[in-house]
Amino acid sequence: MTDHDFELIDRYWRAANYLSVGQIYLLDNPLLREPLATAHVKKRLLGHWGTTPGLNFVYAHLNRIIRDRDLSVLYICGPGHGGPGMVANTWLEGTYSEIYPDVPQNAAGMHKLFRQFSFPGGIPSHAAPETPGSIHEGGELGYALAHAYGAVFDSPDLIAACVIGDGEAETGALAASWHSNKFVNPRVDGAVLPILHLNGYKIANPTILARMPPEELRSLLVGYGHEPIFVEGNDPRTMHRLMAAAFDEAFDKIAAIQAAAREGGDNERPRWPMIVLRSPKGWTGPDVVDGKMVENFWRSHQVPVSGVHSDPAHRQILEDWLRSYRPEELFAEDGSLLPDLAALVPDGDRRMGANPAANGGRLRIELDLPSVDAHAVAVPTPGGSRGEATRVLGAYLRDVMVRNKDARNFRLVSPDEASSNRLDAVFEVTERAWMERIEPYDVHLADEGRVMEILSEHLCQGWLEGYLLTGRHGMFACYEAFIHIVDSMFNQHAKWLKVTRDIEWRAPIASLNYLLSSHVWQQDHNGFSHQDPGFVDLVANKKADVVRLYFPPDANTLLCVADHCLGTYDRVNVIVAGKAPAPQWLTMEEAKRHCEAGIASWPFACNVADGETPDVVIAAAGDVPTIEALAAVDLLRRKMPKLRIRFVNVVDLMALQPKDRHPHGIDDADFDVLFTTDRPVIFAYHGYPYLIHRLTYRRANHNNIHVHGYQEEGTTTTPFDMTVLNELDRFHLAIAAVRRLPDHGGEEGRAAIRYCEKRLAAHRLYVEAEGVDMPEIQDWGWPYATAADAGD
Amino acid sequence: MTDHDFELIDRYWRAANYLSVGQIYLLDNPLLREPLATAHVKKRLLGHWGTTPGLNFVYAHLNRIIRDRDLSVLYICGPGHGGPGMVANTWLEGTYSEIYPDVPQNAAGMHKLFRQFSFPGGIPSHAAPETPGSIHEGGELGYALAHAYGAVFDSPDLIAACVIGDGEAETGALAASWHSNKFVNPRVDGAVLPILHLNGYKIANPTILARMPPEELRSLLVGYGHEPIFVEGNDPRTMHRLMAAAFDEAFDKIAAIQAAAREGGDNERPRWPMIVLRSPKGWTGPDVVDGKMVENFWRSHQVPVSGVHSDPAHRQILEDWLRSYRPEELFAEDGSLLPDLAALVPDGDRRMGANPAANGGRLRIELDLPSVDAHAVAVPTPGGSRGEATRVLGAYLRDVMVRNKDARNFRLVSPDEASSNRLDAVFEVTERAWMERIEPYDVHLADEGRVMEILSEHLCQGWLEGYLLTGRHGMFACYEAFIHIVDSMFNQHAKWLKVTRDIEWRAPIASLNYLLSSHVWQQDHNGFSHQDPGFVDLVANKKADVVRLYFPPDANTLLCVADHCLGTYDRVNVIVAGKAPAPQWLTMEEAKRHCEAGIASWPFACNVADGETPDVVIAAAGDVPTIEALAAVDLLRRKMPKLRIRFVNVVDLMALQPKDRHPHGIDDADFDVLFTTDRPVIFAYHGYPYLIHRLTYRRANHNNIHVHGYQEEGTTTTPFDMTVLNELDRFHLAIAAVRRLPDHGGEEGRAAIRYCEKRLAAHRLYVEAEGVDMPEIQDWGWPYATAADAGD
Repeated sequence: MTDHDFELIDRYWRAANYLSVGQIYLLDNPLLREPLATAHVKKRLLGHWGTTPGLNFVYAHLNRIIRDRDLSVLYICGPGHGGPGMVANTWLEGTYSEIYPDVPQNAAGMHKLFRQFSFPGGIPSHAAPETPGSIHEGGELGYALAHAYGAVFDSPDLIAACVIGDGEAETGALAASWHSNKFVNPRVDGAVLPILHLNGYKIANPTILARMPPEELRSLLVGYGHEPIFVEGNDPRTMHRLMAAAFDEAFDKIAAIQAAAREGGDNERPRWPMIVLRSPKGWTGPDVVDGKMVENFWRSHQVPVSGVHSDPAHRQILEDWLRSYRPEELFAEDGSLLPDLAALVPDGDRRMGANPAANGGRLRIELDLPSVDAHAVAVPTPGGSRGEATRVLGAYLRDVMVRNKDARNFRLVSPDEASSNRLDAVFEVTERAWMERIEPYDVHLADEGRVMEILSEHLCQGWLEGYLLTGRHGMFACYEAFIHIVDSMFNQHAKWLKVTRDIEWRAPIASLNYLLSSHVWQQDHNGFSHQDPGFVDLVANKKADVVRLYFPPDANTLLCVADHCLGTYDRVNVIVAGKAPAPQWLTMEEAKRHCEAGIASWPFACNVADGETPDVVIAAAGDVPTIEALAAVDLLRRKMPKLRIRFVNVVDLMALQPKDRHPHGIDDADFDVLFTTDRPVIFAYHGYPYLIHRLTYRRANHNNIHVHGYQEEGTTTTPFDMTVLNELDRFHLAIAAVRRLPDHGGEEGRAAIRYCEKRLAAHRLYVEAEGVDMPEIQDWGWPYATAADAGD
Repeated sequence: MTDHDFELIDRYWRAANYLSVGQIYLLDNPLLREPLATAHVKKRLLGHWGTTPGLNFVYAHLNRIIRDRDLSVLYICGPGHGGPGMVANTWLEGTYSEIYPDVPQNAAGMHKLFRQFSFPGGIPSHAAPETPGSIHEGGELGYALAHAYGAVFDSPDLIAACVIGDGEAETGALAASWHSNKFVNPRVDGAVLPILHLNGYKIANPTILARMPPEELRSLLVGYGHEPIFVEGNDPRTMHRLMAAAFDEAFDKIAAIQAAAREGGDNERPRWPMIVLRSPKGWTGPDVVDGKMVENFWRSHQVPVSGVHSDPAHRQILEDWLRSYRPEELFAEDGSLLPDLAALVPDGDRRMGANPAANGGRLRIELDLPSVDAHAVAVPTPGGSRGEATRVLGAYLRDVMVRNKDARNFRLVSPDEASSNRLDAVFEVTERAWMERIEPYDVHLADEGRVMEILSEHLCQGWLEGYLLTGRHGMFACYEAFIHIVDSMFNQHAKWLKVTRDIEWRAPIASLNYLLSSHVWQQDHNGFSHQDPGFVDLVANKKADVVRLYFPPDANTLLCVADHCLGTYDRVNVIVAGKAPAPQWLTMEEAKRHCEAGIASWPFACNVADGETPDVVIAAAGDVPTIEALAAVDLLRRKMPKLRIRFVNVVDLMALQPKDRHPHGIDDADFDVLFTTDRPVIFAYHGYPYLIHRLTYRRANHNNIHVHGYQEEGTTTTPFDMTVLNELDRFHLAIAAVRRLPDHGGEEGRAAIRYCEKRLAAHRLYVEAEGVDMPEIQDWGWPYATAADAGD
């Protein structure tokens, strides 16, 4: 590269910096064609300068190498609040104006660009769904590297250049993400180039990685499996040369690694290059303001010089700062970028703002889904067969793997729990991804595995998000209790989806599908610490059109639900399903109808027709609650043969909500037919009871709905005893039903209650002596072929 | 150490291993005095063997060095499911039987010890609140190292020996925790000795740290700032010698570091020693079962040989395994540990099961709290002064720091947000803890700072938990949205507290206090990604006696709430309070009464007396909702002077619940007096509206309660516009009230609605033109001195 080349890059960088400062400060006079006046600056100064010049520096140099080598590069902007930089660069390269024609590449467009930033009705201050080229919201920190890796899995031609802020690097999710390089296969995956940006400061503190001794930092990065290349300094002239050389070296290495792996030979995990960019926070901004150090210190984090609206001296600092970029050397008379700078921009989709991976829906190919019928569990009579729901799903997922093998667009992620959650069938056709040493006695490890396991829910979630956002599909199988580890990541993804639904140019992406198993009622190995069914409560807080909650009661319904979810887009689907052997209720045909309805009475367990009014409704959502509720129905029908009972099962929890609250909500009229308007409803629910109240509080019969669910009681005990501790068991449900009848069901009702109490006492004695549940409870299944048989 | 010494340690280790296996398998015949029969083994085999022999190995060697050097060592057992080992060791050393006299140190006690493990009515399979010597639940993984560091801050004589599983090491929280060593001051804090236990496998996968090339691992640990000492092998004889030497070296180094720092001189961050213990998973267990490799593989994770109840060959493997420890060389005829082994146990409280730090409530000294009166904000008339609530709290916390300076038992933790949340006053008397290099221009950094800032919510939470669990006090100040990052840690801590409340020997510990600021209504800098008020929904799922939710509406109420929370124990207190300048409502005397009541009408804003029935109730919980609700009251009273309005403010959200659901719940009669039984209630709430419904759905007037809250709508916009987007603003509240009146309030009501709609349109035009809120909205405060003045 010649001096002239570097001069061009420097001018391009100055243009991006100028536009970044302009966005934070200017309402008008965008090209500084007149002296800066009060009326030209915003009243409310919002936004973040500190990280921006470094981000712009990286962008300019990436443009250079993309053009030189015709690369496909995705820019992942990890530092918080890098919005001004990302927006500035996409405007410079033209992608911004192509997507938003009302912000053209001229003076009027620049005026609009500045005004809209952090302005009501405008755009946010960080990279966001609105930002071209972004799959990563720079809001909550920590997920950049996981997103980058997710993006390059199965994308052999893609390189994710991932800028990691040194603040972000202190988070747990980011700290764990470094080991993602143990899962990248250079033969079939793309590459991640981490660019650790040490600008030294957070909001009001130095950063750990910037202050630790340099040799310790190098050791750490080598320990992470990287070959770090250091670019350090503050003189732009020198830094441009260092950065260009560093990128040449890094991209050479990536090319060499990929070439070696793709030409065959052994495929050992390589030492991937990475870059450490140590540059001043607020680089090129004001040095000192009011006698206080600003550049290269945390005071440049947000708005380095404030009060510019009222303080002429501060306004002068701003004007000097803006003019220091010499806009007249950057922009033409009409406000467009000068041609020699515009020539630095890569072509078409090679521009990072236009990289197809950043709008992954454009690349999405629908999954080829197997028939659920082929996997149906035979259910000769309700409860007449047993099965393990997630094991059945495992076989279905195996076939998903097979049918989409060539498309290479489906992965299963799990924190070391795929087998524990009984999805092993997938290992008949694929392996766990693993690039470390493989021993002869290892089982189901391979460099090309499509199952990703690491003991980090953060990475499972982050990888899958990156994978989905770049146009692919997947499922996250997790212990129910520990999915809370990614509550905040879920929040951010749901927010991203909510916003993208209003952005026309963003093509829909595949839904994020959670399979939550080893759930609260199946923790006999683990106990209280593993019992928390509250993730769905968090999910229910999000926008109705983005979230779905499913509680399939058996294997066939689980298949139908999973099959449906894998075909949806722009949603988060949560499926809660057990792994323990359990009675099966519905044939595949019945399961399809049930899942279609979302909520329905099960005729085999009712002794009233759908049009009639029962004495009591017993309802259930969840697999274990369904067993206990049906056992309660059975018990009541034997002890109180004249009692008229309707049994209702809810597979799609959102169906409980009014139609105006959720698209899946059923009509009030239909709800009232099922639940009546005045009869007691005993509702056995998988999770914390409140969610059922919250979803039904607008329904006519709400005051009669009595929910039994998890009461935050538990320990290491038998599965049935767990339900007893939380009063979700058949006996407590039956007692609750009888107590709500007129006169408590009379003599028959009192006898039923006495019977239940005796059985509870017998249970207590038995488990404490034997350590297992009574055989008649373990083996219970609905003992009748039809409703007419029951109660005989 | 002599060969005999090593022989003794080996026998002690065998005893612990024997007891661990016994717990997993045996119902009877604990000392194997007869051949093992079906009746002797449990029907349901639960528990985890894999990690246990390594944990026992560490325990035995720690006992040795504690005795040799008279050390105070806290054992933090990070790997999941190390329960059998912790229980075995505390039984051997006598602490278990002292706490649980029904499990004595003899054959009968051993019988009970075995039976109770993972048995209904017994104890969990992992280190738990029930386990002596434990402050750390081995349930959800990742928090061991953070807990260890929290324990040693301000405990100069304590050494936390923290065993980190190589599975756990993959989690985000643990990966971030390594940098905790940048915050330990050897002069005034204790020390952490990390013991990375590489047994190679998780549930069904190898671990990353165990499989990476050894030189890379060393580089990583050096990069973390440690001097690693490696203890690697599988031959017990050799391993005992390596381990003893490693401990000698590590404890020598710790002693030298502390001596140097405490004797004065410069206090540079030292390179702390750590140990890498690479030993086989399931060490000393069955090699091969049914032709499959078990020892040194993941198959030994849980129960290495199953089916022992029915399969005689498997039972024989178990018996051979148990006898391989030669129990006759370990236990006396009566089942007690042989005297030469019992002599290896440290004395009294030096036993790790009896270390006072592990039952921190025993060490807890009440905080000396300053008077809130000294910090009271003057409130001449309601809304007649303005203040920033958290800034006022900062001055109070400064005084807490001062008054408890000598006790050294209070810390403030925050993810780089203490200043952003306006708590800066604390820096008048202390600094941020920082052991890295300090530059001359740095601000408020020192090696002895009592404010802990790192950009990791996980570490803030983990450190504080460790600090509280060992008998100290603290507060966690966090952005409201990002507290979700520690949802799962909160869950685990709340579960811990719930269980400890039923454990008599556990002394109460100080409550975990959250201050959530920069909340959903104050995100004009950040936007949608920073808006999530749902943490309280998660908290409300936990046991009522453990959790409290406070929404102080102004500075004086915030002071009262914080003052109260800092004096409580065994709870989680969540305080949500803003940092923006805002009108102040209550004098300190009024604030005290209000906080005492939890919920009350505010006479100055009501034009009905407490006994009368209003036409409408306007209620608020939260600072911004209180402003908007009061502005709505003002508006309505001006536009509809005859309308009878009661204004109710809720500071303690749990007061909304029925008394039988929460100890803070108010009587139904009192609730009905405030909210009526039949009048519309417009409830302005800080968070997701559902929580108010959930808390009030059993109240008589619930069907008339209309909640306005966060509807998951937001972007970067002005503060008032945020309330408009979510219909929480004064105009929407007033419209909602009028619409619920008979005949929509008649002509006056229709005029009021038209007025509100016009004002909303004017607001929209103004913010989109000016980028700021209209001055009359920015400056609004209750403009009257008394209720009688209002509406004039």
